Amino acid sequence: MSKGSVVLAYSGGLDTSCILVWLKEQGYDVIAYLANIGQNEDFDAARKKAEKLGAEKVFIEDLRSEFVEEFIWPSVQANAVYEDRYLLGTSIARPCIARRQVQIAQQEGAQFVSHGATGKGNDQIRFELTCYALYPEVQIIAPWRIPEFYNRFRGRKDLMEYAEKHGIPVPVTPKAPWSMDANLMHISYESGVLENPKNHAPSDLYQMTKNPEDSPNEPDVLEIDFIKGVPVKVTHVKEGKSKDTPLEIFSYLNEIGGKHGVGRIDIVENRFIGMKSRGIYETPGGTILLHAHLDIETFTMDREVRKIKQSLGIKFSELIYNGFGPLEADYRATAIKAAWEREGHVPQRWFWYSPECEFVRHCVDKSQENVEGRVQLSVFKGQVYILGRESPKSLYNEELVSMDVQGDYDPCDASGFIKINAVRLREHNRLQGAAPKKL
Amino acid sequence: MSKGSVVLAYSGGLDTSCILVWLKEQGYDVIAYLANIGQNEDFDAARKKAEKLGAEKVFIEDLRSEFVEEFIWPSVQANAVYEDRYLLGTSIARPCIARRQVQIAQQEGAQFVSHGATGKGNDQIRFELTCYALYPEVQIIAPWRIPEFYNRFRGRKDLMEYAEKHGIPVPVTPKAPWSMDANLMHISYESGVLENPKNHAPSDLYQMTKNPEDSPNEPDVLEIDFIKGVPVKVTHVKEGKSKDTPLEIFSYLNEIGGKHGVGRIDIVENRFIGMKSRGIYETPGGTILLHAHLDIETFTMDREVRKIKQSLGIKFSELIYNGFGPLEADYRATAIKAAWEREGHVPQRWFWYSPECEFVRHCVDKSQENVEGRVQLSVFKGQVYILGRESPKSLYNEELVSMDVQGDYDPCDASGFIKINAVRLREHNRLQGAAPKKL
Amino acid sequence: MSKGSVVLAYSGGLDTSCILVWLKEQGYDVIAYLANIGQNEDFDAARKKAEKLGAEKVFIEDLRSEFVEEFIWPSVQANAVYEDRYLLGTSIARPCIARRQVQIAQQEGAQFVSHGATGKGNDQIRFELTCYALYPEVQIIAPWRIPEFYNRFRGRKDLMEYAEKHGIPVPVTPKAPWSMDANLMHISYESGVLENPKNHAPSDLYQMTKNPEDSPNEPDVLEIDFIKGVPVKVTHVKEGKSKDTPLEIFSYLNEIGGKHGVGRIDIVENRFIGMKSRGIYETPGGTILLHAHLDIETFTMDREVRKIKQSLGIKFSELIYNGFGPLEADYRATAIKAAWEREGHVPQRWFWYSPECEFVRHCVDKSQENVEGRVQLSVFKGQVYILGRESPKSLYNEELVSMDVQGDYDPCDASGFIKINAVRLREHNRLQGAAPKKL
Amino acid sequence: MSKGSVVLAYSGGLDTSCILVWLKEQGYDVIAYLANIGQNEDFDAARKKAEKLGAEKVFIEDLRSEFVEEFIWPSVQANAVYEDRYLLGTSIARPCIARRQVQIAQQEGAQFVSHGATGKGNDQIRFELTCYALYPEVQIIAPWRIPEFYNRFRGRKDLMEYAEKHGIPVPVTPKAPWSMDANLMHISYESGVLENPKNHAPSDLYQMTKNPEDSPNEPDVLEIDFIKGVPVKVTHVKEGKSKDTPLEIFSYLNEIGGKHGVGRIDIVENRFIGMKSRGIYETPGGTILLHAHLDIETFTMDREVRKIKQSLGIKFSELIYNGFGPLEADYRATAIKAAWEREGHVPQRWFWYSPECEFVRHCVDKSQENVEGRVQLSVFKGQVYILGRESPKSLYNEELVSMDVQGDYDPCDASGFIKINAVRLREHNRLQGAAPKKL
Repeated sequence: MSKGSVVLAYSGGLDTSCILVWLKEQGYDVIAYLANIGQNEDFDAARKKAEKLGAEKVFIEDLRSEFVEEFIWPSVQANAVYEDRYLLGTSIARPCIARRQVQIAQQEGAQFVSHGATGKGNDQIRFELTCYALYPEVQIIAPWRIPEFYNRFRGRKDLMEYAEKHGIPVPVTPKAPWSMDANLMHISYESGVLENPKNHAPSDLYQMTKNPEDSPNEPDVLEIDFIKGVPVKVTHVKEGKSKDTPLEIFSYLNEIGGKHGVGRIDIVENRFIGMKSRGIYETPGGTILLHAHLDIETFTMDREVRKIKQSLGIKFSELIYNGFGPLEADYRATAIKAAWEREGHVPQRWFWYSPECEFVRHCVDKSQENVEGRVQLSVFKGQVYILGRESPKSLYNEELVSMDVQGDYDPCDASGFIKINAVRLREHNRLQGAAPKKL
Repeated sequence: MSKGSVVLAYSGGLDTSCILVWLKEQGYDVIAYLANIGQNEDFDAARKKAEKLGAEKVFIEDLRSEFVEEFIWPSVQANAVYEDRYLLGTSIARPCIARRQVQIAQQEGAQFVSHGATGKGNDQIRFELTCYALYPEVQIIAPWRIPEFYNRFRGRKDLMEYAEKHGIPVPVTPKAPWSMDANLMHISYESGVLENPKNHAPSDLYQMTKNPEDSPNEPDVLEIDFIKGVPVKVTHVKEGKSKDTPLEIFSYLNEIGGKHGVGRIDIVENRFIGMKSRGIYETPGGTILLHAHLDIETFTMDREVRKIKQSLGIKFSELIYNGFGPLEADYRATAIKAAWEREGHVPQRWFWYSPECEFVRHCVDKSQENVEGRVQLSVFKGQVYILGRESPKSLYNEELVSMDVQGDYDPCDASGFIKINAVRLREHNRLQGAAPKKL
Repeated sequence: MSKGSVVLAYSGGLDTSCILVWLKEQGYDVIAYLANIGQNEDFDAARKKAEKLGAEKVFIEDLRSEFVEEFIWPSVQANAVYEDRYLLGTSIARPCIARRQVQIAQQEGAQFVSHGATGKGNDQIRFELTCYALYPEVQIIAPWRIPEFYNRFRGRKDLMEYAEKHGIPVPVTPKAPWSMDANLMHISYESGVLENPKNHAPSDLYQMTKNPEDSPNEPDVLEIDFIKGVPVKVTHVKEGKSKDTPLEIFSYLNEIGGKHGVGRIDIVENRFIGMKSRGIYETPGGTILLHAHLDIETFTMDREVRKIKQSLGIKFSELIYNGFGPLEADYRATAIKAAWEREGHVPQRWFWYSPECEFVRHCVDKSQENVEGRVQLSVFKGQVYILGRESPKSLYNEELVSMDVQGDYDPCDASGFIKINAVRLREHNRLQGAAPKKL
Repeated sequence: MSKGSVVLAYSGGLDTSCILVWLKEQGYDVIAYLANIGQNEDFDAARKKAEKLGAEKVFIEDLRSEFVEEFIWPSVQANAVYEDRYLLGTSIARPCIARRQVQIAQQEGAQFVSHGATGKGNDQIRFELTCYALYPEVQIIAPWRIPEFYNRFRGRKDLMEYAEKHGIPVPVTPKAPWSMDANLMHISYESGVLENPKNHAPSDLYQMTKNPEDSPNEPDVLEIDFIKGVPVKVTHVKEGKSKDTPLEIFSYLNEIGGKHGVGRIDIVENRFIGMKSRGIYETPGGTILLHAHLDIETFTMDREVRKIKQSLGIKFSELIYNGFGPLEADYRATAIKAAWEREGHVPQRWFWYSPECEFVRHCVDKSQENVEGRVQLSVFKGQVYILGRESPKSLYNEELVSMDVQGDYDPCDASGFIKINAVRLREHNRLQGAAPKKL
């Protein structure tokens, strides 16, 4: 007698293969779900493997376009960076993956979802908050937090033994002494030898970017066109080649960024769960976009709007990192509606998520109304150099700022401006003078 | 009959030489003051020139050490960056220069100070707010805001004619088609051909950094030691060479950063005065320090303290940019007290400045108490790569975060943590479900 | 030969009457404009006076409804309070008045506008920023900042003499030893005897609210209904009376609040111009609405959204106080379009104002989507007491929070929640233990 | 064989009496601890009751002075208010109580602490975070989160039966249909009939404040003197009576506030745990102090410092509410050191708590340096009216702000100030004019 159906976020690897079999052992019907968000994977092989291990159904879902449009693009608009450095490549992938997982669960009438995220990390939170938000009655099976599971599988050796015993194909190449997570936006590396924060990253670690020491000795110059803060076209100036759909644009920026070794960072970050962890990331296309968007944004956005938007962007980044966002509400409504209608189904509760992320997302989006124009930049040896920019909507006024012409500006006004700004300072001084500090 | 004495911030160049003579024409006794804050200048020649033009006195002041210790170091602690990109090299130099100018004015009994900053820029504000704050009764002569002056000198040609007429030596090399401002921290370039924001920076523009295309094909690896968020030692790992006084540390980082083309940016920024302007900057040493400090700070500082400190750092940057700071209050008190005692003088009101910058500065300083440790990094082809870090005061706990050992951590706790965090999301969902949006 | 037309913000009082005549003396054609924003004034008498003094045209404009709908309502949504106490009654009136003034200027082809605000206050800024924003080419005549004017009129006596000489009717009742500014939202009192911050407000000062010592000994109980954060109906529970248009709602709340002495404050505030000033305010209806809106907002808004919204509301208040807002963009577009079409005119540039206030306003508005429901409150002896509230959109879940039933909540989850929240604290402790502070 | 010693936070009431006996049943040695933080309680009777129920030891600790000095005073400095209305009376008491509980546990060698807080509330978190922070190895027994306990005691009836069975004295008066929590700062009321947010508070609910309808018909006028943002003296102007120790000052303000019905609020608030709850509070002395401190603070503090401090105060309030603070670090170190030395013990880890609260606390404290002076106010019918203020350290400059004299101020400067502030607005307008919105 089955305990019910569980949709397992399946990666094709050793861990989730063992979990698949273990869940069956526990009495569940397992539906395997593998999201294609741009990682390098043999999806056909993974499907066969899952079927062979006893999955009732296997869903391989190509989420790459929605990942770019609904998750990466909003992050670009927000200049989303966690703790000044991390571009959130893993963080924004999790709700994208979990959203489809929940959709499958509802569609298949499964009350359970499961994943292979560890009990010390951020990803468990990102997965599960998405699930609880979109499917409040769902029950979540997180084996790495269940004592019977984690006490049984104390190390890789235990998993290997279990795999052999249950006919789970065992990887033939030795595991790298670190773990990695890859998607279209980035690859992250952590744990193993990287856990000592003093250890340098091994030279053979990076898979998405060329070592800048070996990268081309000549830059590539790109032009990126933005509308509403989102890239709509990228052009290779010399080659004349251009891309103009989201997935193509982002993939091309990854290609160029990767070729020149752009976007490598080595950081210690603060997990939501309260501990510090060391991570190494490579985010080639995202890094190019961050530079380009910062440039066109400052060029077109009012100074005071930008200040407010900057703090909203920081908030947005924290929310994403901690698992409270983002979903592009309207876009999502439309996309999901279409998806569900294909299934002949009326969704009950698909149109919301974390209220604060929806709110911040909305405000950031509003700020991008005039963020439009073209940025020219050079990519070379791990670095992105802004070369110039133009925009039909810039607040930059060449005549006003010029040192050669006066423009619509009277320099005498500055005297009053400065004097009034000094009123407070002089009062402060007056007070201090009246009650001098001891030397 | 003299109108009184004016202390002129003199650069040795054409503009301030004309201003010097013009001020004399207006009936002032001119005291020329030239601050050495690390720019490439023949200070002896400048002294002679000023004397020849009729300056009553000439002060050449070496402010390099106090510039590093009292202005650059606090900026490093704050991760001071204006509008996400500009490292404030000019902004922090202005109060340093103006402070000494005021000190000279008080010492010499001068009621007036003067400068050659334009009426459209930020520097006039930074100079003058410092002056008004430290010497409230001062009167400021800003020729580029006085109609009789700026209507007479409408272009460089007018200055050249005036110079010839008054025996002011005229530069023999043609002026570059842009203006620049140099100090120990950076060189900035703006106006002229750069005013069109689409124009690329000319290849012969940069003077402080090597073009990364021509920079060495091998990185230099450095170790930087921090105490209280301030670098106390830099070591070249391979060469074993090290520096440990502030001025030497910063100069050495400039040397290494310059050699590898680090710290070039091309941005459009928002001036305090309300207009956008395009600036190109090179900040080699400051860029290395920003990367290193971010790393050691996140390694040693509590997550929630860091969030608050991050927004204080942004505030600090705005204050510096706009001319409301910074001065290291205590340090200053001591330094100035010593300076004044040498003069046999008791200062009346030397120990304060903008109250908000003093406040933010104090808070930032408090946050740096445990920011201590060593960062190893590589400098190569315009980029800074963090390689590793260690600290006696890190909150990083390798055992706690490890994937291989459990540490003092029960993964089951995470379930409760996630579920409680989901309470709000589920309530939000419940409400939305009760009042569904229309599709 | 006329210098051109000037639209003068005319109050009917001594100052602006003198200014009217003085402007004529200077060679301007004067158009007098008097906004009815709810102050107690004989508008017909004012019209006749202006005509008699030589105004070419006189505009008396009833702005009360738009003041409530476009200025007070957005402030209610934002819980707009400056420096924790001032409800901004004067601040939000200024752009409302100035907007119509500019509209008249454009309609009448006047290049000049003028006002009687002093050179030390906030109102000059609020007026003029509105004018510059909406009519960038306008020229502003601020007599109290023109030396020929203010040196001529050094005190009230000079104005009286000038008035007598030019046939300007002179007030027969002696002037109160303070100045006041009244509109539908509040009356403010300042200067004169109030300039000494230690002096108590005279007992006969207040005009809009009853002294709580003399107010009724029985409360009035009201119900206020909100939709999207804006009051749509107020009901007197006992009397069954209700109001449901914006102007009537606000006027009725003023009546009830005034009757019970609600909304009196005595504060020292910080002007934009950098000085501190003492103001006394009475804001009866606005104070009731602030309490009621805070209640329904917290009842219906997600906690995390509210935190972000709270800081946006503080920003909004600063912007209004300093003169950078607000205008309800869409509403305005529609209203002005209609107004202009009546005039057979196509506006060129009517649809924007300070970009940051438009942005913040937009975000605040978004936050109010679900702020809907009914608040019951009691008004008594200067105080507003919330009695209860209900809402179809509340996130309050009586079952979830109940101490008597468990609801959809497992108390065990709290253990994990607390322990995970303690991870950071224990690490902090660990570090401190390792490097103990000296006692 | 005992499982070990547990220090139970004992209130003397039915719940914690049952818990005491139940803990014994489970095999623990129980040390009863009852903090006197100003609640109305017969402490001797409570001691006897605990002893009779089998407590090994009973500690009755008078924490009133440290509660005022170390917890209430810092909150006054911060203007600590949660969600714009709640003065945090319960929140700041919890760490005060828990701190001593931990101290006793360490002193007595107890590995366990226990409390009677429910599993849905904030207090469990505040208690436990304090415990984990100060005594990381402690084990916490929270019976209301232990299924065997809460399933056994599903309602008051079960507790009564258990009490009768175990000789626990049962309250003779019927329980009020709500729960309350009292301390020196406030009484809070919640649950029971109050759980329906529409229900009005029963008229017999309030115990600390008089109903304003029945309060005196004449105000009391007080003068409060502040130094460093903390009240140092309160004087009844008419009676000439004054108090000048912290506990006396606060108690007297409670007396006067209570007499006039000051500080009653009825709110719905957001718990840390993610749910909304309805609470009714009366905070007489705290409300008077909030008004007085706001007044003297704005009078003496620079505008820009205050803006930053305001957001730190909001942060501080959230931290306290959520259980992450506060402890007055230095004060605490000294006090605890003394306490421990009396015990002949060297503390190992007493000098830290939540790092972010310590940081914010430090910054707030810094902001209060000049917050010094005297506020005169009137207390009447539930309301506090500020009458006037004076200070030796005010930044208020009567001459500067006066409408009658010019002071050190040139009104012409305001023209330049306004025009420069308008530059951005005009550019924004220009852009909009160039790309007009459709009507």
